[in-house]
Amino acid sequence: MERTSVPPIHNVAICGGTHGNELTGVYIVREMQKQKMEKAGSVSVTTVETNPRAVAAGRRYTEMDLNRCFTDVLLSSPITESTPYEVRRAQELNAQLGPKGSAEAVDLLIDLHNTTSNMGLCLIFYSIDWITLHIYNSVPVRAIQLDIPSSKAYSLESVGKHGFAIEVGPQPNGVLRADIFNVVKEALDLTLQWLQKFSSGRNFERGTVEAYTFVKSVDYPRDSAGKATAVIHQNLQDNDFKLLRSGDPIFQTFSGDILKYEGEDLYPFFVNECAYYEKKIAFHLAQRKTYSFPPISVKND
Amino acid sequence: MERTSVPPIHNVAICGGTHGNELTGVYIVREMQKQKMEKAGSVSVTTVETNPRAVAAGRRYTEMDLNRCFTDVLLSSPITESTPYEVRRAQELNAQLGPKGSAEAVDLLIDLHNTTSNMGLCLIFYSIDWITLHIYNSVPVRAIQLDIPSSKAYSLESVGKHGFAIEVGPQPNGVLRADIFNVVKEALDLTLQWLQKFSSGRNFERGTVEAYTFVKSVDYPRDSAGKATAVIHQNLQDNDFKLLRSGDPIFQTFSGDILKYEGEDLYPFFVNECAYYEKKIAFHLAQRKTYSFPPISVKND
Repeated sequence: MERTSVPPIHNVAICGGTHGNELTGVYIVREMQKQKMEKAGSVSVTTVETNPRAVAAGRRYTEMDLNRCFTDVLLSSPITESTPYEVRRAQELNAQLGPKGSAEAVDLLIDLHNTTSNMGLCLIFYSIDWITLHIYNSVPVRAIQLDIPSSKAYSLESVGKHGFAIEVGPQPNGVLRADIFNVVKEALDLTLQWLQKFSSGRNFERGTVEAYTFVKSVDYPRDSAGKATAVIHQNLQDNDFKLLRSGDPIFQTFSGDILKYEGEDLYPFFVNECAYYEKKIAFHLAQRKTYSFPPISVKND
Repeated sequence: MERTSVPPIHNVAICGGTHGNELTGVYIVREMQKQKMEKAGSVSVTTVETNPRAVAAGRRYTEMDLNRCFTDVLLSSPITESTPYEVRRAQELNAQLGPKGSAEAVDLLIDLHNTTSNMGLCLIFYSIDWITLHIYNSVPVRAIQLDIPSSKAYSLESVGKHGFAIEVGPQPNGVLRADIFNVVKEALDLTLQWLQKFSSGRNFERGTVEAYTFVKSVDYPRDSAGKATAVIHQNLQDNDFKLLRSGDPIFQTFSGDILKYEGEDLYPFFVNECAYYEKKIAFHLAQRKTYSFPPISVKND
């Protein structure tokens, strides 16, 4: 692979509170604002508490999941009296940090999330992006790739020229844990260090990374009224990213029966994520794939 | 100690959903209702989903913490248009399962709770009560005693002639875990077995149990505007019931400083409980005490 020149990263936005009850990002952003952290070397840093109304309410969102509002359709929908708060807020954020897909958009957008699932520290991104893969290669995380075209990408990080979510768990909604706060702070510090080296002209070598690519979601078993009749089996609980094979138990019904997985071997993630109950998702399944990335260096302006 | 005769337990109420986002009790009560579980031997069993409006909203409560509404003052306060939903509901429950302190009250009231703290399976009770101590001695749990007189006792279990809360964690609010569901189900099964043996005239021998007695609460450090400036230190996080000694770290400030405990050696519990952020409680501290209880048998009617 030939060395690829990549346009410089002049500015980065670090966002928290997109889901108001995921507290790591809220407190990291507030601390960076308190410390007046506006530069990392030559890279400008902007920090944004993205859904302050949901943070104040201690809820994921007030009227609609903000992190599903960044599709081209919702970002361009006319605002009327009945427009949910989060759609208005998405358009404000798009004006501040985007517009999505434009030359004015922030160079890199990092959005901080938590999960109740035992996923450790993950980067979640849409398309394969050399910057993201190089950063991932320098920070000890797992990577999850969602194969969705940019126009349909629904989450905040799609507004930046480059973007990813940092997703960390397990942490209950509404709770702040020191271990997770520290892990995210360290990942951000390493990312900013990488960006400074990249900006200063350093070459980064080729490499390969493993990433989990979303395949499908699995819902809970339900009765004729649509109510869930089972809970995640304890052998699957907390075992995100451990290969699930046909015949492995996945659910325990409330009356005590065990239901088993049938299908191809895949990797579960977002196992028993609180916010996915209403989305009818018990867990996602992924394939593990290896991605090669070229050596890169900054393209001078 | 002489054998003590204790009036029989004819009926028991098993309650869940007093906090609408603590899901173990909600799903255990619903499953018992589905199975039409109305008797355990000669003991009548009533199951109640106590705060259905909060359960539907996926919140701890809608207007006021229901489990702080069972004081004599609130149970006898006149209902007006501005009375919070939970005070009305407390009075309904008191009419159904009490009245508190009366001969008509249910013999034993068990209320099912979850915590985000790593407390395992605990029984929480007010006064020392031979029935509760004997049950605790037959079920593998920790016991927590709150030394509050009955008239000021604020939680649902104080409505029964005997009563305790089963408190289990860690489980995030809004999440149902199979391991915790199974532990609570087993504790209830063992409790109902004990009640059947007691009703059928069996003698229970004297013994001693260890219980944690509430001493005081510790708040987060705060800035001049009243905002918390720190998170529970990771050495204390998840270490409920491990002796805290002077000099042990208890908080990490958001800027990275470590704050240490000063005071007598005590046992922390409810460490980093989500619902206690608004109550300004970072953790409780307890003494461990040994309680002796007499041999008991049922007093025939």
